[in-house]
Amino acid sequence: MNNFFMNEALKEAKKSFDLDEVPIGAIIVKDNEIIGRGHNTKEHTNSPLNHAEMIAISNACEKIGDWRLIGCDLYVTLEPCAMCAGAILNSRISNVYIGTRDQRMGCAGTVINLLDMPTFNHKVKVEFGVLENESSSLISSFFLKLRNRK
Amino acid sequence: MNNFFMNEALKEAKKSFDLDEVPIGAIIVKDNEIIGRGHNTKEHTNSPLNHAEMIAISNACEKIGDWRLIGCDLYVTLEPCAMCAGAILNSRISNVYIGTRDQRMGCAGTVINLLDMPTFNHKVKVEFGVLENESSSLISSFFLKLRNRK
Repeated sequence: MNNFFMNEALKEAKKSFDLDEVPIGAIIVKDNEIIGRGHNTKEHTNSPLNHAEMIAISNACEKIGDWRLIGCDLYVTLEPCAMCAGAILNSRISNVYIGTRDQRMGCAGTVINLLDMPTFNHKVKVEFGVLENESSSLISSFFLKLRNRK
Repeated sequence: MNNFFMNEALKEAKKSFDLDEVPIGAIIVKDNEIIGRGHNTKEHTNSPLNHAEMIAISNACEKIGDWRLIGCDLYVTLEPCAMCAGAILNSRISNVYIGTRDQRMGCAGTVINLLDMPTFNHKVKVEFGVLENESSSLISSFFLKLRNRK
């Protein structure tokens, strides 16, 4: 099941790839149903907030009419940055499944784990390495494409 | 000048107060001009992303047509949470002026300082205590109003 849902997140990431955006995708699942989808559109929308996870969270909240995504799982192809980890906390998501790590900006355990901080009012379970190769090679191909174009 | 701009952020916070939202306001300043404003509307919009800082950043990016808020200052009545600190990093804001600290969730120095992390690709200067009493008493009055209603 994890691979099935991460594959859906990868489909989202490919939409960013085709738009010449860093290819990151996310989906939100509740009771085995996908209730939110998002892909990175930062450059096209001129918004630093439009990371895949943010769009998926916004989409899911709209769908269920609540800012609380209690009992929901988020699947994302790249480890969340500080903003997205914070949004995951703020929306009370229960579990996060991650494709590949972000060694410089990753805030779900690599640089720091914002999803398990002693004073914060919510904690999230994290699992790394779901379709890791597929997630990381999509990002590598994107940067290769950029370099070849220059 | 700091007090003038924080007072504008307080005016935003009062809009949240009147909506029965936790009263937090933010503004963004570039070259002494206010280019973005926001107040917390989380409950009314059913969105965990609609913190004051996020709306002000979104507003400013729309105004200047760029996701980079380089050289901009953010004034916010309460210390940013993880999500908002991450958004401040992602938008490359230069300086953050804060009214009052958040002892449990504050990510600009109180619990952790996400705005000055060694591996991250951006750092932000932070100043605490701008109109601190006004900022904190507005929040206290809000929770007093809530308690009195029950």
